[in-house]
Amino acid sequence: MDAIEARLHALGLSLPAAPIPGGNYLPYRFNGESLVLAGTISIRDGVLTHAGQVGDGQTVESGYEAARVCALNTLAAIKAALGSLERVTDVIYVAGYVNAVAGFGASPQVIDGASDLFAQLYGECGKHARTAIAVAGLPKNATVEIQVTVRFR
Amino acid sequence: MDAIEARLHALGLSLPAAPIPGGNYLPYRFNGESLVLAGTISIRDGVLTHAGQVGDGQTVESGYEAARVCALNTLAAIKAALGSLERVTDVIYVAGYVNAVAGFGASPQVIDGASDLFAQLYGECGKHARTAIAVAGLPKNATVEIQVTVRFR
Amino acid sequence: MDAIEARLHALGLSLPAAPIPGGNYLPYRFNGESLVLAGTISIRDGVLTHAGQVGDGQTVESGYEAARVCALNTLAAIKAALGSLERVTDVIYVAGYVNAVAGFGASPQVIDGASDLFAQLYGECGKHARTAIAVAGLPKNATVEIQVTVRFR
Repeated sequence: MDAIEARLHALGLSLPAAPIPGGNYLPYRFNGESLVLAGTISIRDGVLTHAGQVGDGQTVESGYEAARVCALNTLAAIKAALGSLERVTDVIYVAGYVNAVAGFGASPQVIDGASDLFAQLYGECGKHARTAIAVAGLPKNATVEIQVTVRFR
Repeated sequence: MDAIEARLHALGLSLPAAPIPGGNYLPYRFNGESLVLAGTISIRDGVLTHAGQVGDGQTVESGYEAARVCALNTLAAIKAALGSLERVTDVIYVAGYVNAVAGFGASPQVIDGASDLFAQLYGECGKHARTAIAVAGLPKNATVEIQVTVRFR
Repeated sequence: MDAIEARLHALGLSLPAAPIPGGNYLPYRFNGESLVLAGTISIRDGVLTHAGQVGDGQTVESGYEAARVCALNTLAAIKAALGSLERVTDVIYVAGYVNAVAGFGASPQVIDGASDLFAQLYGECGKHARTAIAVAGLPKNATVEIQVTVRFR
């Protein structure tokens, strides 16, 4: 276990199995010194942890938890790609998508569930540029999806 | 005609004319060794092939066809940028947007219409990281839009 | 004041204060020779200039103005990152998000409010690849958000 995973455990969290793509795509692709991850949703062990829309069943608080689940799936994909979470030097960008009712305006508070975790694990290097928007729907009707780009050594 | 275009023809498909931007933007931009394409919609010869939302007139199956139309438009833009489709070494990333009713959860099955074509044409190099989300609306009320980044030689 | 800012003033516009992130993220991140900006919304001096959805209170015309406000916020973040707007060599990519009613199809005309400004300020180098989509909601219920990637010297 690497130092980042140890920090994850200290937070009471653990890495899930690496995400299985839900279509004809790959969980990640290298682009020069960037690692481009596929989107990951709020699912664990093949079962959605959070389904449905924020504002209709889900709340900002449960959405925050859903975003953390997404981040854990992305971390599992990073480990599959790089062998160790310690090889990440910078989290560059997080695109956050919240499955929400029309007019929902608190997507940043939801996506902070992912951003907070990256910052807790990686410190300043884990902080990133970001968008957080509400969308009409997400795969399998998941509540949250994130898509991340990191740099690595 | 290059080998990729020959493969396209063997699939019964052909390259459309390069897409004309629907606003004050460019069909592509180079960023170092990456070619960043603008979004392309389900249109051919200036006429939408698939319009309206999946779940309200369009289906997962027709959306799949719409995504393939988008991929053909992106390929036409790639040829305009690089001169030959053979210069693509890797399809890095596909962002897929499905114009769909609220709560639509099958965007991956729709966007596979684009991803399957890239994989058929380029094999392993055509496989990519991806997001596939449902959105409230797309330009001209098109059913699908994709936005692609590739690497080239 | 640099030459780009002088051009901005000649258009009757001025740079706002650099945007303050609305969550646990950074206004920008460097990725090699790219500067990746966080999304910026239609807000100025902490007050939304344009709120609510296009098609329900806002129009294509007011959305166009909102997109220009977003572009000004992005330019302020670029200045904070690079010290001078003149260090931008290429605007690579603009992702444009319009908070709009379901089925809205004129997002390109809205996002042109940002694209036109980049082209006015930077000429050919300011032109970019782009997507423009309608989404279910944006942070603080802003009418428009853009997310930009540029190259710099």
